[in-house]
Amino acid sequence: MPVSSLTASDLAQVTRVAELIRSHQSFLIVGHVRPDGDCIGSQLALGLGLRALGKQVRVYTPGPLMRHLTFLPHAHMVETALDMSFEPEVTAYVDCGGRDRAGQDFEPRGRIINIDHHLSNDHFGDAAYVNTRATAAGEMVYDVLQHLGVELTADIASALYLAIMADSGSFKFSNTVTRTFEIVTELVRAGASPSWIASEFYDTQRPGTLWLKGQILSHLHYECEGRLCWAEITQEMYERAGGESCEPEGLVSELRSIEGVEVSVLIHELAEGGARAGIRSRGTWDVNMIATELGGGGHRNASGCFIRGNYPEVRDRILDVARRHLAQPPAAQQVTAG
Amino acid sequence: MPVSSLTASDLAQVTRVAELIRSHQSFLIVGHVRPDGDCIGSQLALGLGLRALGKQVRVYTPGPLMRHLTFLPHAHMVETALDMSFEPEVTAYVDCGGRDRAGQDFEPRGRIINIDHHLSNDHFGDAAYVNTRATAAGEMVYDVLQHLGVELTADIASALYLAIMADSGSFKFSNTVTRTFEIVTELVRAGASPSWIASEFYDTQRPGTLWLKGQILSHLHYECEGRLCWAEITQEMYERAGGESCEPEGLVSELRSIEGVEVSVLIHELAEGGARAGIRSRGTWDVNMIATELGGGGHRNASGCFIRGNYPEVRDRILDVARRHLAQPPAAQQVTAG
Repeated sequence: MPVSSLTASDLAQVTRVAELIRSHQSFLIVGHVRPDGDCIGSQLALGLGLRALGKQVRVYTPGPLMRHLTFLPHAHMVETALDMSFEPEVTAYVDCGGRDRAGQDFEPRGRIINIDHHLSNDHFGDAAYVNTRATAAGEMVYDVLQHLGVELTADIASALYLAIMADSGSFKFSNTVTRTFEIVTELVRAGASPSWIASEFYDTQRPGTLWLKGQILSHLHYECEGRLCWAEITQEMYERAGGESCEPEGLVSELRSIEGVEVSVLIHELAEGGARAGIRSRGTWDVNMIATELGGGGHRNASGCFIRGNYPEVRDRILDVARRHLAQPPAAQQVTAG
Repeated sequence: MPVSSLTASDLAQVTRVAELIRSHQSFLIVGHVRPDGDCIGSQLALGLGLRALGKQVRVYTPGPLMRHLTFLPHAHMVETALDMSFEPEVTAYVDCGGRDRAGQDFEPRGRIINIDHHLSNDHFGDAAYVNTRATAAGEMVYDVLQHLGVELTADIASALYLAIMADSGSFKFSNTVTRTFEIVTELVRAGASPSWIASEFYDTQRPGTLWLKGQILSHLHYECEGRLCWAEITQEMYERAGGESCEPEGLVSELRSIEGVEVSVLIHELAEGGARAGIRSRGTWDVNMIATELGGGGHRNASGCFIRGNYPEVRDRILDVARRHLAQPPAAQQVTAG
């Protein structure tokens, strides 16, 4: 086997999931709301794999299913309306950090499988494979299908490639490790086309999204000697761009990557008043502290908050807190607030 | 060996290069003008590898050496001023499509090695390894070092990872194949850090570059029912952004990736008058025909031209030719012009 073995603990989990799959015949595979490339790719690969074993399979996500997620072979298998007459023996959650991620109204039927890599996952279900070291849920579906002896067809490989490529930021995030590339090698060998998948997934930008991105990039604000970079998206901008679905993805992280910038803040005016903000840092700045002070939270280098109220006042409050943190060195920030 | 074997023809070339290296003691490793990640990564890896064999090595590129290329361990080995007193037994060209790519004034000394993957390479030198199927020159340096039995240290692996990541567009271009990932797996196993290298290489954007990108993205022109997208960068915009070095990389390709766009054109006003234009297409449009009609050329999906004269007139001429081509279906375009 060219791919590194699983740890004993992971193998035990995979074995239990595989046993539950082998001993049942009908499956509902569910993903999370606002599915991403990992979610759809993992669901589709598991669905195709179980069908190859002769199982009855339906694949469901609450959606919305964006165009850049529906290019894969057999993507039409993914349903966004739940057929209530379907009574599966097993409900398999994929890439869901918790049961509630499959939608508020969703009720599982039959026994429950849980395949996921989120820290928040509490190992719910009758058979759970939770591996927070996995690059993507797709990598874990790969493990399960290998254990089941499912042949790696080009269609399954393509779905898994999408999952891993998407959740690793095209192999740029820190979850990209040796085993990631070991598996990807097998996927490409089995027929996944890296350039085709990347092109279908990334190269479908809407004119309104690019216009909005352009407006933001040409109106960036630099403060604190260039260490703080912030920008805002107002409702007026959203209206001109074609609505909030035109929000450019990953922009607040891109702002963090500017020379000299240590903390970036992207503030969105909300239609109902107030704002939500994404806050990012690199290096030692703990932006979770900034977000926590604003009633939000997250991780050390990536946090966010959501504040109701008068927009200009809320925006200024967010910026004031960020400025105050940046006025002291990162080490002092930790000591003071920690 | 976990990495696929070379073809017999490639192996014969690698063997000759390795023999020439084994039988000599001092080397000058040269790259091309405006070196990119592949060039610097390949040069550095070859330099470190030959030093590990006890050879005397100097590494030279005519430059300029941008900041995002100098983060690797031992990057200080790369010199941009040539020490004329150094008399190497061998000059090794890396990633140079021709001898002239190492700079107009550069004269090789001693015997010549040529390691490159460009179509234009005519196999010059005493020992040439030219492989146009290689993802990057870095992949070929990997082949040579493996053949020489050089240990893959973390520093060599990091340099090769940069080379392959950069020339594959972070594994998005069509040169990304099974062997790419086989080699990358070995590099990461040897200690290359994908996220660190990607962050150092990609996350160093200048404020002026982002402002310019923002201006362009919020002033895109769509014509021919949205199939043609064009934009311009005037000298006034360059001046405000901080000079022509603030040109955003890869932008004309990004414009091609907008929903519905088939051909993209980015026109740069030149300081000395006239314009240069990058022209990109996806699918069946042959933009080489558009560029050829304008006195330029290139490839089917990526071409360019350079025209002297009055800027507004030159810009309009470029756009008129593009519009005329897009007025007919791609098949007809080929029949008429081919």
